[in-house]
Amino acid sequence: MWMSSTHSEGNNRIVSDNTVIPESHKDLLESTALANVATAGPGGAPQVNPVWFGWDGTLITFSQTKARQKYKNLHKDNRIALSIVDPVNPYRYLEVRGKVIEFIEDPEKAFIDSMAKKYLGEDKYPWNQPGDERVIVVIEPERALTMG
Amino acid sequence: MWMSSTHSEGNNRIVSDNTVIPESHKDLLESTALANVATAGPGGAPQVNPVWFGWDGTLITFSQTKARQKYKNLHKDNRIALSIVDPVNPYRYLEVRGKVIEFIEDPEKAFIDSMAKKYLGEDKYPWNQPGDERVIVVIEPERALTMG
Repeated sequence: MWMSSTHSEGNNRIVSDNTVIPESHKDLLESTALANVATAGPGGAPQVNPVWFGWDGTLITFSQTKARQKYKNLHKDNRIALSIVDPVNPYRYLEVRGKVIEFIEDPEKAFIDSMAKKYLGEDKYPWNQPGDERVIVVIEPERALTMG
Repeated sequence: MWMSSTHSEGNNRIVSDNTVIPESHKDLLESTALANVATAGPGGAPQVNPVWFGWDGTLITFSQTKARQKYKNLHKDNRIALSIVDPVNPYRYLEVRGKVIEFIEDPEKAFIDSMAKKYLGEDKYPWNQPGDERVIVVIEPERALTMG
């Protein structure tokens, strides 16, 4: 991979507090960058796709419909990794590894609406479909790796 | 995830030819977008990070130093997934799942230099480090999922 020489292991402690993410890269968690989320699919093969995400200073969250494969994957294996690339500097990124500690029901769609606010500037998520059952996937970061 | 309703399974055939990638999203493989590459780490936990990639119409390639964890991961488990988001439309992306079929030695750094040409417009990769041993990771796409 490019820039392997500047690769740093960041903060490797496997602890659940808000010091896992290096100060130097917390801005990425506060940005409107997408997170590319990797999970283990059926049989353990990796899967990855972009999501909107939230961050409360300790936990990372994203919205998921129950019909999606990723939701099923995470019920089977709650280990997860997210890659967040700086939108203005592609040579700077944060990888967070951790585990899903909770799925919170979102029947009123309050969380996905808050994501629409963050990413679209709209009060309501515009792409709800009849029958969509949404949960908030709550991730506890355990390890962070940074570059740039 | 957002837009789950418009999610399409693309072309699900598990075949090794150049029809795995839908025509509609081949432009992403020809772009200078980054690919976020997911592998299974030690113990099977997912890992993900951005890479520069190449595409010859059939196979996807990226450069890797042998010292990196991802190289070790792929020797143990050659299953891989890549997420490529359209740089000008974040609601359009391509996920490719497949396997690494070969590691090609790159002692002259010809491949990483070609990546520097593609992504930086430079003839030589500027960040080589003494002792870097590079390989070309060759991926055979087996399945593609698209959105947007």
